[in-house]
Amino acid sequence: MHSPELNDLFTLLRFASVSTDSKHNADTRAAADWLAAKLNRIGMAAVIHETPGHPVIIAKNKHLEGRRTVLLYGHYDVQPAEPYTEWRTPPFEPTIVGDRIMCRGATDNKGQLMAHVCGLEKTLREEGDLPVNLICLFEGEEEIGSPNLKPFLEAHRDELKCDVVAISDTGMVAAGVGTFTYGLRGIACCEVIARGPSIDLHSGIWGGAVANPATMIARLVSTLHDAEGKVQVPGFYDAVRLLADWERDSWKKLGDTASETLELTGSPELFGEAGYTELEQRWARPTAEVNGIGGGYQGEGSKTVIPREAFAKFSFRLVPDQQPDEILAAVEAHLKVHQPPGIRLEVKLGHTGFPYLMDPFSPFGLAAQRALETTFGGKPALIREGGSIPIVQAFKDVLGVDTLLLGLALPDCQAHAPNENFPIANFEAGMVLNQHLLRELAK
Amino acid sequence: MHSPELNDLFTLLRFASVSTDSKHNADTRAAADWLAAKLNRIGMAAVIHETPGHPVIIAKNKHLEGRRTVLLYGHYDVQPAEPYTEWRTPPFEPTIVGDRIMCRGATDNKGQLMAHVCGLEKTLREEGDLPVNLICLFEGEEEIGSPNLKPFLEAHRDELKCDVVAISDTGMVAAGVGTFTYGLRGIACCEVIARGPSIDLHSGIWGGAVANPATMIARLVSTLHDAEGKVQVPGFYDAVRLLADWERDSWKKLGDTASETLELTGSPELFGEAGYTELEQRWARPTAEVNGIGGGYQGEGSKTVIPREAFAKFSFRLVPDQQPDEILAAVEAHLKVHQPPGIRLEVKLGHTGFPYLMDPFSPFGLAAQRALETTFGGKPALIREGGSIPIVQAFKDVLGVDTLLLGLALPDCQAHAPNENFPIANFEAGMVLNQHLLRELAK
Repeated sequence: MHSPELNDLFTLLRFASVSTDSKHNADTRAAADWLAAKLNRIGMAAVIHETPGHPVIIAKNKHLEGRRTVLLYGHYDVQPAEPYTEWRTPPFEPTIVGDRIMCRGATDNKGQLMAHVCGLEKTLREEGDLPVNLICLFEGEEEIGSPNLKPFLEAHRDELKCDVVAISDTGMVAAGVGTFTYGLRGIACCEVIARGPSIDLHSGIWGGAVANPATMIARLVSTLHDAEGKVQVPGFYDAVRLLADWERDSWKKLGDTASETLELTGSPELFGEAGYTELEQRWARPTAEVNGIGGGYQGEGSKTVIPREAFAKFSFRLVPDQQPDEILAAVEAHLKVHQPPGIRLEVKLGHTGFPYLMDPFSPFGLAAQRALETTFGGKPALIREGGSIPIVQAFKDVLGVDTLLLGLALPDCQAHAPNENFPIANFEAGMVLNQHLLRELAK
Repeated sequence: MHSPELNDLFTLLRFASVSTDSKHNADTRAAADWLAAKLNRIGMAAVIHETPGHPVIIAKNKHLEGRRTVLLYGHYDVQPAEPYTEWRTPPFEPTIVGDRIMCRGATDNKGQLMAHVCGLEKTLREEGDLPVNLICLFEGEEEIGSPNLKPFLEAHRDELKCDVVAISDTGMVAAGVGTFTYGLRGIACCEVIARGPSIDLHSGIWGGAVANPATMIARLVSTLHDAEGKVQVPGFYDAVRLLADWERDSWKKLGDTASETLELTGSPELFGEAGYTELEQRWARPTAEVNGIGGGYQGEGSKTVIPREAFAKFSFRLVPDQQPDEILAAVEAHLKVHQPPGIRLEVKLGHTGFPYLMDPFSPFGLAAQRALETTFGGKPALIREGGSIPIVQAFKDVLGVDTLLLGLALPDCQAHAPNENFPIANFEAGMVLNQHLLRELAK
């Protein structure tokens, strides 16, 4: 016998709303329909808006003059569940194992989204209204990069006008520790292609007289960092804002995260920029990563060719106040300065996203902290995260407001991976958090 | 109306004897059967020997005491013809275009092999015997690395006892210029794999704190050469025999090959070890080539992962007196000295082959040169080639004899590529060469 709230979550979880896979379009649509109906049932006027992709749901309580307006964002789509064989329970049949709900989407993002919806339901049932003007904005394309959300925000700018955004789609530092994420890294991507001969050459006949694009791409990649892992692109660190003393102190209190990182990544040892803690390296320092490198023979054994071309795909994680376009320009200039001999070089610039940083001691930040403290007990952890959430920047750009990131996922919730799970306790805490948050934001 | 000789070559060319493709096993077998029958018809007693793969043909004239014994090697198998769409004529239907025979195998090796067979036929018809004891050894697995030939040589060591081997399966420096190849480079292959995290990691969440195997493989590859292309593996050049003065002079006479190499390779510019000519770089200097590099995302656009592993496949072309096993040991030691941080390194050693060098002024070398001079007029070009022909080493190891490489292919004969072709003139010259060669070797 589950609680009615858990039953609702299970219903939503059973829709295999895999946004990237058109085979699941009907499931994704059904999830949106059910969610809108649920919102209507609890007293939030919900409307489904079509987009070129999956629909967006907007739901509002009755908005009153003189109250704060809060936008609650979430997404009802999920990652694919493949490989199915690695799941210990059916990926789209929620199953309780110990104290956790196992299911694709349990943590990302249906569990966190439904905790908020159930919190709203409780408040509306008990008090007849919410303490704020609320806008729910739930989309179905987060897992494919929210291609239609920014245009949607622009088209519905007036309808979505608000004072602040709240999202539960990030992590907690540990079970039971309320966690406020006040910063995210930005991103800038590019790809570099080294082109040599017009066809793959016989490395015996020609080797020695022409440049090898695979050798040259490696040489180029090796110029990105020094031996200690510091990025060598001139100007790369110029705009990096130093960590505030309170941040350094606050993160130190999270203890030694090195062993957890080793365990979760499986890396043989940690390696990062000297002079920074493991958390500082991931949350407050920019990086240059090779996401892919390739060229020449990829099969078993050997094939003695000089490949006609080779490539490397880079992404740079950025921190305040680095500007993605400036970084890409600096990277492109660096690659051209170091262009190896004997090849043609092409640099393709890719997508970018600004780093995000808000003041956790702003009035809204403090309100979020109080809500976390009342929910979980104890001072919340104040953290940044290393990833990038482009919608947060879209809210800033289009609506001009900050986003409060109040995550409920644990490090071992396996988001995007097989055996995704969500603790029942976090689902229940999320409902309580929703109630406290709206109360605090109303003040 | 073709000559009877050209008709025979066309018949052999029509068998699609693609040794690597079991779909063509019947064609490959039919080619062997036809060739053995042809040899019997001209008076060479041919026997088909089964192997674990495609058969080997041995054919002999009547051997007389007191005569030289010459082994003539060739192969009746061919490379696959894919991609068919790039052929301007049917790949397995010999077609004369201008002065060339277009067909898969036209140059490599059926055209060159049949030139010799037709030369034997002519001598036998005109003179009733050959001037030497001849052994034809024709195999059907050259294009797949002759896996069964060395054991076959060992098993038939007595039957194949000879004074010298002759092969036409190499190149001519230009049309009409008789070319004697007296050296080949050796080879040593290995692969290095850098392993980091246990799965591909999210480069936002984890980037900065763990080593990236793609970055590290690039760093490792970049230690192989200095900026000018000199190999940096300690001891790599220690055993390299210097080019003899006569070689340097002889190769200079071949003129400036740089523009031809640029045209044939399509490379934007030449790049090689400083202080050597383009020919010296390809024929007399060892190399370190990356034949393949890979790791992480290989598709379109970007995927922000830290790959769990990355690899590089190397081959080293070797020259006298480098020892393949010593080179691989030095490379492995070098890779381990330069092992980047934060990853596990695995080095897999691959196949090796010795470099080959014979004295072109030895009695057999001079005989070959005289045969070329009589056939083509003018002094033959004395060259080495950059590739490796493992069977040449097998003849040396098992039979204890040198191999005379008297190539008939032109640089634009497109061996292994679409639109393979062979000049009719080279086919006819090959017949004459066979007659002069046996006469000279008999002296």
